[in-house]
Amino acid sequence: MSDMSAVERLEKQLALVVEIDQLKAVLRRTRVKSDAGRLENSAEHSWQVALMAVLLQEHANEAVDVAKVVKMLLIHDVVEIDAGDTFVYDLEAAKLQPEKELKAAKRIFGLLPEDQRDALMALWFEFEAGETPEARYGKALDRMLPMLLNYHSEGQSWKEYGVRHDQALKINSKIEKGSVLLWEKVQTMLTEAAEKGWLKKYNESDD
Amino acid sequence: MSDMSAVERLEKQLALVVEIDQLKAVLRRTRVKSDAGRLENSAEHSWQVALMAVLLQEHANEAVDVAKVVKMLLIHDVVEIDAGDTFVYDLEAAKLQPEKELKAAKRIFGLLPEDQRDALMALWFEFEAGETPEARYGKALDRMLPMLLNYHSEGQSWKEYGVRHDQALKINSKIEKGSVLLWEKVQTMLTEAAEKGWLKKYNESDD
Repeated sequence: MSDMSAVERLEKQLALVVEIDQLKAVLRRTRVKSDAGRLENSAEHSWQVALMAVLLQEHANEAVDVAKVVKMLLIHDVVEIDAGDTFVYDLEAAKLQPEKELKAAKRIFGLLPEDQRDALMALWFEFEAGETPEARYGKALDRMLPMLLNYHSEGQSWKEYGVRHDQALKINSKIEKGSVLLWEKVQTMLTEAAEKGWLKKYNESDD
Repeated sequence: MSDMSAVERLEKQLALVVEIDQLKAVLRRTRVKSDAGRLENSAEHSWQVALMAVLLQEHANEAVDVAKVVKMLLIHDVVEIDAGDTFVYDLEAAKLQPEKELKAAKRIFGLLPEDQRDALMALWFEFEAGETPEARYGKALDRMLPMLLNYHSEGQSWKEYGVRHDQALKINSKIEKGSVLLWEKVQTMLTEAAEKGWLKKYNESDD
C-alpha cells in the first residue's frame, strides 16, 4: 500500500468501477414486472438486495454488522461477469460454478490495489462459505428476494420453468439459517403460491 | 415501534422492497456500453455508485462513515419512481424537481414503520442538502460516475446532447467539495474528452 501513490491507487480503483459495468448485462431468471417483464440483471438485483439488508436487519437470527452484509451483497455477484448467472433450480450447472467463480473473483478483484483485492476476496469467500452471521443473513436475503418478486409477479418464473412446491421449499429452506422469521413468511407465501397454481403440486407431472 | 409486532414490521418493510422494484424502470441518459448501448436505469446506477463509495473512501476530503454514505446512495434515487430522473444539463427541469422528489420521498419511505421512515427521510434530506462530509463525498461520486462511464463510451451522451467542455466543467466542479483528488482526475479526463472532440469547445455552435 505504501509504495503506491494515491493517484495510482485511484487509477486501479476506477478500472474496477468501469469493469463491473458489465454486470448490468448479466441476466437472471426473474422478470421485472414494472418494465414490461424484461429479465432482471445482476447489477440491479445487487442494489435491491443490499437495500433489503439495511431494512430487514432487525429480523436476522444473530446480531449482524449490517455494513459488512451490504458490502458482501454489493460484490457477491460481480464474478458473474466472467462466470455467468446460474439458475438456482439448475443443479447440474451449479456444480461447475464454484471453480468458474473463483477464477473470476481473482481476475476482477485483482484489478484493485493489493490490500483492497485481499479484503474483497476475503469478503467474497466469507459470503460464499455462509458460515458467519453476516453471510447467513446475506444469503437468506439473496434467496428470499427473487422468491418475493416472483410471488408478486404471480409466480412468473416458477410457471416458466415448471417449479414444484416441494422444490421451492427445499431451495428456500436455507433462509432459516439467516432468519427464522423470514423463513416463516416464505413458507406462508409458498403455500399460497401452490394454492393459486403458481407452483406445481408434488404429484403433478413435469409437462 | 413497540406497538407493532415483528411480523407487522416485516410486512411493511417487504412492501417497500417490492415498491422500489420500479426503480429498475427509471431510465437515465447514460448508455450501458456492455449491453448494446441501452439506457442505464437508476437501480443499477445506485448499485454501482454505492460500491464505488466503498472502493474510493480513502480519497474523500474528510473522514467519512462509509456505511452511511452507502446507505445514502442506495436510497438516493428511489424518489425517481414518482418524480422521474432529471438530466443534469437540463436546468429548467431541475427547478421543479425538489418539490416532486419531496412528495415522492414522503410517499415511498412512508410505507415503512415510522422509526425507519424517519431515519430514511433524514438520510435522504442529508444527502440532498450536501452539507455533511458523507453527503459531500456521496454527491461527488454520484456526479463522477456518469462522467466516468461517458468517458469510457467515447463521450456518448455528451455527443448525443451537444454538451460543451465549459458546461461539463461547471456541472462536475462540485466533485471538488467531496474529493480534491477525484476533481483533479475529472478535469484531466474532461480536457482529454474535449481534445478528442467528445465535448464541444466553448466557441463551437450548438448545431
